[in-house]
Amino acid sequence: MLANRILANEGVLDAFGHVSARHPSDPARFIISRSLSPGQVTVDDLQLLDAGGARIGGDGRASYAEVAIHAGLYRRRADAMAVCHSHASAVIPFSVTDMALRPITHIGAVMGPRVPVWDSAMKFGDRMLVTTAEQGDSLAEAVGDGSVALMRGHGFAAAAQNLRACVMIAIRVMQDARHLSAALSLGPVTYLSAAEVKLSRSLILSPLSMDRAWGYWTSRLPR
Amino acid sequence: MLANRILANEGVLDAFGHVSARHPSDPARFIISRSLSPGQVTVDDLQLLDAGGARIGGDGRASYAEVAIHAGLYRRRADAMAVCHSHASAVIPFSVTDMALRPITHIGAVMGPRVPVWDSAMKFGDRMLVTTAEQGDSLAEAVGDGSVALMRGHGFAAAAQNLRACVMIAIRVMQDARHLSAALSLGPVTYLSAAEVKLSRSLILSPLSMDRAWGYWTSRLPR
Amino acid sequence: MLANRILANEGVLDAFGHVSARHPSDPARFIISRSLSPGQVTVDDLQLLDAGGARIGGDGRASYAEVAIHAGLYRRRADAMAVCHSHASAVIPFSVTDMALRPITHIGAVMGPRVPVWDSAMKFGDRMLVTTAEQGDSLAEAVGDGSVALMRGHGFAAAAQNLRACVMIAIRVMQDARHLSAALSLGPVTYLSAAEVKLSRSLILSPLSMDRAWGYWTSRLPR
Amino acid sequence: MLANRILANEGVLDAFGHVSARHPSDPARFIISRSLSPGQVTVDDLQLLDAGGARIGGDGRASYAEVAIHAGLYRRRADAMAVCHSHASAVIPFSVTDMALRPITHIGAVMGPRVPVWDSAMKFGDRMLVTTAEQGDSLAEAVGDGSVALMRGHGFAAAAQNLRACVMIAIRVMQDARHLSAALSLGPVTYLSAAEVKLSRSLILSPLSMDRAWGYWTSRLPR
Repeated sequence: MLANRILANEGVLDAFGHVSARHPSDPARFIISRSLSPGQVTVDDLQLLDAGGARIGGDGRASYAEVAIHAGLYRRRADAMAVCHSHASAVIPFSVTDMALRPITHIGAVMGPRVPVWDSAMKFGDRMLVTTAEQGDSLAEAVGDGSVALMRGHGFAAAAQNLRACVMIAIRVMQDARHLSAALSLGPVTYLSAAEVKLSRSLILSPLSMDRAWGYWTSRLPR
Repeated sequence: MLANRILANEGVLDAFGHVSARHPSDPARFIISRSLSPGQVTVDDLQLLDAGGARIGGDGRASYAEVAIHAGLYRRRADAMAVCHSHASAVIPFSVTDMALRPITHIGAVMGPRVPVWDSAMKFGDRMLVTTAEQGDSLAEAVGDGSVALMRGHGFAAAAQNLRACVMIAIRVMQDARHLSAALSLGPVTYLSAAEVKLSRSLILSPLSMDRAWGYWTSRLPR
Repeated sequence: MLANRILANEGVLDAFGHVSARHPSDPARFIISRSLSPGQVTVDDLQLLDAGGARIGGDGRASYAEVAIHAGLYRRRADAMAVCHSHASAVIPFSVTDMALRPITHIGAVMGPRVPVWDSAMKFGDRMLVTTAEQGDSLAEAVGDGSVALMRGHGFAAAAQNLRACVMIAIRVMQDARHLSAALSLGPVTYLSAAEVKLSRSLILSPLSMDRAWGYWTSRLPR
Repeated sequence: MLANRILANEGVLDAFGHVSARHPSDPARFIISRSLSPGQVTVDDLQLLDAGGARIGGDGRASYAEVAIHAGLYRRRADAMAVCHSHASAVIPFSVTDMALRPITHIGAVMGPRVPVWDSAMKFGDRMLVTTAEQGDSLAEAVGDGSVALMRGHGFAAAAQNLRACVMIAIRVMQDARHLSAALSLGPVTYLSAAEVKLSRSLILSPLSMDRAWGYWTSRLPR
């Protein structure tokens, strides 16, 4: 619930987009809100879904149309404990052009060295929504061992080792996308080196850093 | 009233601009506020106008100067149940340059495959406001069977099958205009295909999607 | 006081900048706050200054360093009943480049057909602040019979026939500067014709339009 | 505490970044919050550190990872009474491109005539954080006798003669970076002359100006 509210408050999620967490004791299942804008989610809205995206807990209200994004990532990535799907404006330009999204700041390093772009039209025709297991698998394949993949004309999907890291990645991929857009208008850009990405990423996702950020995000939530 | 407040709160309307609804039982008439900024509209401000834009209900306070936009669209488009006119900043650049406004995201698809630009100066000289039936007809002709037309140096006019869809179109044409401006600064852009526009548009305007968005917008209104 | 608060709330003025009104019954004098950020001004902060910028009413607290801007415009322009000086970010780029600021929307027409740039360094060396009568005269000469002049690396000065019009001009020169910056990034721009500027300007500054805008701005003020 | 809250509220600091003050009676020491986002700092969070960055006062909770930035500047610059480190988005593009950050407005003059870029990778390999005395010395050398240096892919460090001036420099380097980015998109830019920088800087950092700005920033703090 808190992750939903933080991501809504920080502008990562609006009416659309969603965040989920793998069930802590049953790794074949994950917890996600029913179809509802993230800023409005309460505990009564949570549902339990299985690895196929089928609802096995929570009441009968409609699930998000794109739970297949989450299911696909949980199936492929045993290490992923949290998944986020967002339409954040800042990443859209990188999803529809040939300009690669790469980190230029140490905090942006949480996105990994380079963010691939997945295009639903390459295999699945005119459907832009990810609603089938095949689409979920394909998107998860694009994410691979990384943290995030852009979805052409749509947004991004991120996976992380815990929910806090997932929130950090979602917020910072958006912010570094803004930084990079602005920097590119000034001239050729110096990106982080591969070693800088690796070292910075581990520092930003460390407990000291994450505690500070989580405290900051929660302090900004409307009471 | 709610549509007025949502569009003001989401930045589509400010001091200027307006939204109207065709009368549910008398299709030759439509309901619109008296001349007032949309965020301030209450039930006492609503007026009933006929298909010529003449006031036939509500008190004697002044109507908006540009009710002809609404009247023109209701006359031409029997299917249109709601109309919105906005000066949203994000669309202005596309109204004064040769760069076409087209959707690059599945949600932006609600604007249709391409947004035409209507220029008042082509037929009506130096008057930029739409105040006559002839101007209203001309603008409605530019919208045609579509959802929205830009007005050169002025804003846009949108028509939709219901009020919620009209609000969605107004908000998302503005947001995808921002996305497209940003994307164009990075390089050549991949737009949605015609088939993607068609399919995405129907999904975004479906009840499940619209319920979620409407709940989101209303949750953001100041109490 | 209300003009101060509106201009602060709409982002035209911040810690710096100021707005004044000619005294209604004594045209050789004008009313302006003591040196204080505009959002904080109360009735106790108002001072009465003469056409030379000397304080003749209000307590002994310091005046703004740049009251010479106001005094200069009131001296030259007998028709001006209000003056505003702002550092609004949106106009800065046009003050330090050769790109001319001209209106591209009907509301932006309130700035007039073209906004001249006044450069203090042309006559007054390295001083960027306008603190002498000679500088005030020079700036007022740049405004001429128009509504506003940019000040290189500094902001703008606007003069108007009444306080409401001055607020409208200040807000809209800022907004159309943003529009124009964005449009120029897309390609060659169609500006308003001279006749469109003239007609639109008179419509936007008409009572019906100004009442609506003033009601909007005041409704947005924090209680 | 107030400086922390102002810098958070004005968008200079977010979850990360920090501001410190040299101890008023013991110049070999400085006061800084424990590791906490600046908007949350209270008096109980303040710690006393020595010129080597070691904690000698306050409870045992973790210090910021980068106190070496502050320690380095206090060691080198006997005149510096306050230091700020920020990740402000507006300066990032100038830290990763060859475009120099220089003031284009009289208020931006507080940054000095030109802002150098310090790149941790030139001497310290892949570590982007400033955690050692050697790094602190190197960064302080880049600041030199100036007010601020950019840190490649990271942010900036600023030093000033008092805490209020430090806050002003931090806010205005960010705002003029935005101005300059926008101006560069319009064409070649006229920067302030060296003499204009010098004169404007002293005027903006004068008591009359700083009192007004400090009053403005505090009036904007949430109650």
